[in-house]
Amino acid sequence: MKELTASILIIGNEILSGKVQDRNICFIAKKLSERGIILKEVRVVLDLTEDIVEAVNLLRKKYTYVFTTGGLGPTHDDITAEAIAKAFSVETEFNENALKLIEKYSLEKGLVFNDARKKMALVPKGGILINNEPPGFRIENVFVMAGIPETLYKMFSYIEASLERGDEILSKNLVIYVSESLIAKELSDIQDKYKSIDIGSYPFLKDNEPASDIVFRGKDITVIHKAYSKLENIAKSNNYRYEK
Amino acid sequence: MKELTASILIIGNEILSGKVQDRNICFIAKKLSERGIILKEVRVVLDLTEDIVEAVNLLRKKYTYVFTTGGLGPTHDDITAEAIAKAFSVETEFNENALKLIEKYSLEKGLVFNDARKKMALVPKGGILINNEPPGFRIENVFVMAGIPETLYKMFSYIEASLERGDEILSKNLVIYVSESLIAKELSDIQDKYKSIDIGSYPFLKDNEPASDIVFRGKDITVIHKAYSKLENIAKSNNYRYEK
Repeated sequence: MKELTASILIIGNEILSGKVQDRNICFIAKKLSERGIILKEVRVVLDLTEDIVEAVNLLRKKYTYVFTTGGLGPTHDDITAEAIAKAFSVETEFNENALKLIEKYSLEKGLVFNDARKKMALVPKGGILINNEPPGFRIENVFVMAGIPETLYKMFSYIEASLERGDEILSKNLVIYVSESLIAKELSDIQDKYKSIDIGSYPFLKDNEPASDIVFRGKDITVIHKAYSKLENIAKSNNYRYEK
Repeated sequence: MKELTASILIIGNEILSGKVQDRNICFIAKKLSERGIILKEVRVVLDLTEDIVEAVNLLRKKYTYVFTTGGLGPTHDDITAEAIAKAFSVETEFNENALKLIEKYSLEKGLVFNDARKKMALVPKGGILINNEPPGFRIENVFVMAGIPETLYKMFSYIEASLERGDEILSKNLVIYVSESLIAKELSDIQDKYKSIDIGSYPFLKDNEPASDIVFRGKDITVIHKAYSKLENIAKSNNYRYEK
């Protein structure tokens, strides 16, 4: 099976100014992981056409999918649709279904359905609507979605089934209540022995005592189990407290 | 005054897998904004040497500062110091002060001070220590810091004063309790009139009613006030409820 890869492009002055804490990356990352799509890169750029165009054109050639969030609203600083059109060298056009969805959404929410709101129905030529209220769109391998987390989460539920499924990425973790430096050598040996999986070590404090969350990720559950058992045995033989 | 710019490079498998919600971008973004440094871009990459090298070499040439977080720990998956050294085409070497800081930190936290822990004192040749316990380092315009938010926040306090100060980025906001589409046309006109500032519109729901947080950002407080007053007058004359 071919490897499915992805990147996220956050179009977000408000993230880069520190005004808003991002809540989109983690959500999309989890969803992709569940589908066996490997998220390889995230970029956050300013609401500037040339920055968006450059990033989109690079990422869409490099990865199976690109997911953008932000800049789809009715105001002057919402420039994503125009920028994506520019990246694909096409014009934007009013999408009839988008107009209907936005009108419906506007009425339901008590929002005025004026020219500014209609602007949200501008979609690059060749773009396919994401039928949310309000809608986003897909053009080739680029999914263009809202920046407001609650709207994004809803939009994503519309596209999820259309994404290819990669080999499931399996994961198992073992929490050991010692500092990761105590098991670093052993972890490194285990990683060297089982190169087809990724072993990550994430230190944290539990009741002010050092602890390590060791994550085994990969496609082959047999290999994961072997590596996992090796570490469990090391914990046992050293009388380290651990939790499965 | 020359424009000071920055980018953040998050080295983080755990962010890209969706395991961990990032808490570093927003923190650094706010700090930079306070100092008048414009954060232009954020990237999140996998814990892969070639990805880190490529990103660092691109970003350090493009921006005044680069801030990296993650991958400074004692385990096999902590490869940041080596990758940064590679990006600068230098070797890593044990830093005597780093060894002392890590030993002190280890003793205080009840962590073992073994070879794995010592690895954390490897710094690229030419790197200058960030004297935190545990330490990070700076090499040229690249600041290399921890990924664990609490450690990063402490590390950042050591480097903050060494960063140049740009023109302060001033900001004022007006919350209007109507949908942003109702004021989109006016906002666009105000933005066209006052091009030296950035006007951002951030819609949200308050008690299920549409509201818009309008942010005016720029270096000239007179211009900000003019634009702000224009919008306030529009809100008044339309009897829109608003909050300063």
